[in-house]
Amino acid sequence: VVSKLPQTGTTIFTVMSALANELGAINLSQGFPDYDCSPELIELVNKAMKAGHNQYAPMAGVMALRERIAEKTEKLYGAVYNPETEITITAGGTQAIFTAISAVIHPNDEVIIFEPAFDCYAPAIKLMGGVVKSLALEPPDYRIAWDMVKRLINQKTKMIILNSPHNPTATILRKEDIDELSALVKNQDILILSDEVYEHLIYDGETHHSMARYPDLQQRSFIVASFGKPFHATGWKVGYCMAPAYLMNEFRKIHQFLVFAVNTPIQYAIAEHLKNEETYLGLTAFFTEKRDYFRKGLEQTRFELLPCSGSYFQSVSYRGLSDEKDTDYSIRIAKEFGVATIPVSAFYSKGIDHHVLRFCFAKRQETLDKAVDRLIRI
Amino acid sequence: VVSKLPQTGTTIFTVMSALANELGAINLSQGFPDYDCSPELIELVNKAMKAGHNQYAPMAGVMALRERIAEKTEKLYGAVYNPETEITITAGGTQAIFTAISAVIHPNDEVIIFEPAFDCYAPAIKLMGGVVKSLALEPPDYRIAWDMVKRLINQKTKMIILNSPHNPTATILRKEDIDELSALVKNQDILILSDEVYEHLIYDGETHHSMARYPDLQQRSFIVASFGKPFHATGWKVGYCMAPAYLMNEFRKIHQFLVFAVNTPIQYAIAEHLKNEETYLGLTAFFTEKRDYFRKGLEQTRFELLPCSGSYFQSVSYRGLSDEKDTDYSIRIAKEFGVATIPVSAFYSKGIDHHVLRFCFAKRQETLDKAVDRLIRI
Ligand SMILES: CSCCC(=O)C(=O)O
Ligand SMILES: CSCCC(=O)C(=O)O
Repeated sequence: VVSKLPQTGTTIFTVMSALANELGAINLSQGFPDYDCSPELIELVNKAMKAGHNQYAPMAGVMALRERIAEKTEKLYGAVYNPETEITITAGGTQAIFTAISAVIHPNDEVIIFEPAFDCYAPAIKLMGGVVKSLALEPPDYRIAWDMVKRLINQKTKMIILNSPHNPTATILRKEDIDELSALVKNQDILILSDEVYEHLIYDGETHHSMARYPDLQQRSFIVASFGKPFHATGWKVGYCMAPAYLMNEFRKIHQFLVFAVNTPIQYAIAEHLKNEETYLGLTAFFTEKRDYFRKGLEQTRFELLPCSGSYFQSVSYRGLSDEKDTDYSIRIAKEFGVATIPVSAFYSKGIDHHVLRFCFAKRQETLDKAVDRLIRI
Repeated sequence: VVSKLPQTGTTIFTVMSALANELGAINLSQGFPDYDCSPELIELVNKAMKAGHNQYAPMAGVMALRERIAEKTEKLYGAVYNPETEITITAGGTQAIFTAISAVIHPNDEVIIFEPAFDCYAPAIKLMGGVVKSLALEPPDYRIAWDMVKRLINQKTKMIILNSPHNPTATILRKEDIDELSALVKNQDILILSDEVYEHLIYDGETHHSMARYPDLQQRSFIVASFGKPFHATGWKVGYCMAPAYLMNEFRKIHQFLVFAVNTPIQYAIAEHLKNEETYLGLTAFFTEKRDYFRKGLEQTRFELLPCSGSYFQSVSYRGLSDEKDTDYSIRIAKEFGVATIPVSAFYSKGIDHHVLRFCFAKRQETLDKAVDRLIRI
């Protein structure tokens, strides 16, 4: 058969986690915690199953969950989404992203993405016959040069994909970015796909600039979020998409034939869990502690630390320590020192390699200790 | 925005289940049971969560589950699938179907489907730029005229989609069909997508002619199955796809960016549950009883019963009772008699209406009794 994605291999997350397992290395590559989700949340799923919530959920999701999401969004960002027509529960953030792209990208439509970029954006665009226009950002700050974005825009530009807090760079959009973006899309038919999966993981008193805060942007945005990351249950695969009705209508046309509906008992459980806002508002403190602890550890190594304003990823530069490509270097570090990481070049399409590795710090203190002990030896 | 699927409305299952809920009608429309899955299965999910299986599953699925599927497939159909490279766990049968179509259908490729057809096939084909070539089958037997299929085949024909036991018609493929199909695709580059979601729901001592039984067909087939239907847990959304490695490789390229992975604790639970083969081998007896009971009830109505050889659907013709379109008639029956059904014209693209309604009989005896009591009054 002729491949639909001839240039596509296996996602780096699968490759590195498999390597970590094979080697028995400490796995700081793929983004998931090595501690468990809350026993209360598990008990809520158990209760939902025992209450008989085991058949198809409504196509758009369990209404109680959509209502909790609408309430949370209004409270945090001031935007009013109608749970009936503007919120859809998905099988994780990835499915929401794929579906949003599928719903609006026609052949030859151009989509602007910023690299390093989460690796599911480009394949989804290409699969729909769209054209990826990528702008490569540079460490340590990875700031978006908006004048460069402006030069990429033309009649064919259909969508800009944003991701804040950003995976893998741990940067966040600032108010200046929002102002530039607003000016740029004004009077243009450009949609936004805003990947806000790490919305609650933001540090140092910074604000999460959700597209939901800005009516001019909100009106043209698919906003994607997830429960796996905030609730430490990445294996449950429940997320959601919010968009104004004219966009959500198109999203659901695909969603209904792509997956139809999402796991029912987990939706009931999360709807209940969300009633306690501490479950997500407490995440900043929880992860700030981990970030600070891990950074302090890494300061003892020969790596150069990059900033971390959000997400649960910390990047380091190994410039000066080795000339190896980051893909080679990360494999060597895993093999020789027993710590698996993600080489950030995997998030660039054009083989750009800044000699940066990404670590996930959503780990127990002893795991971080052990990793640091090993990394110090480099 | 310009719609990607301009002709597509909301799936009939959502429409009719919503109407049933609104009216408080007995819902024999969408295919799901009104009794619960086994408490042991729920307890297995609970155990898996408590054992800490709450983070990302491997992209292709939990290995223990893939191994159980490989064993079951070899035992039942004689085919050897490598769990490492030829089986992938999906978020339900629908996601498997969408992904298989996405993985191989290029713009202008033609796909042959038989109508009435499950409503997710055509939108997925169209979304990939493919062309749907449909052959309309006729009640009461809905047999495939293979000489007609032959006439549809040309250089552009990329795939044939089969579904046995068949939803909505409850017919099954016979050995003659397999022979005709084999002759037809011989020396041709034609793939098969075989939707075998109802593989264990087959009656009267008939054989399920899985593509996995026939090496010449197996080598070109994506086989899709589900755990929601056999295990009475349609809301759990776990299914799978099997295909030879050259096809599965393409399938996974899409799968990894479409959903990445599937609910972890449920995969562990089902892997355990499958160890007892009675969980699926017992389904024929279980549903034969329901089918026979419901048919006996329906015989007291003025409807004409169509054959039912597999699946948990029973169709009836109301020819002679009304000249209304089946879409209008099914709504009227739901409103006036309190029983929701699926109008089978919803599964034809060209407005073909044979005056046939589909009932789901995966219901408790008292539900079927109550429905029959109401239908007798028509
Ligand atoms: C979808 S698997 C990868 C998890 C993740 O978000 C990451 O590691 O970046
Ligand atoms: C995917 S929702 C519909 C369930 C089903 O298979 C049916 O009712 O035909």
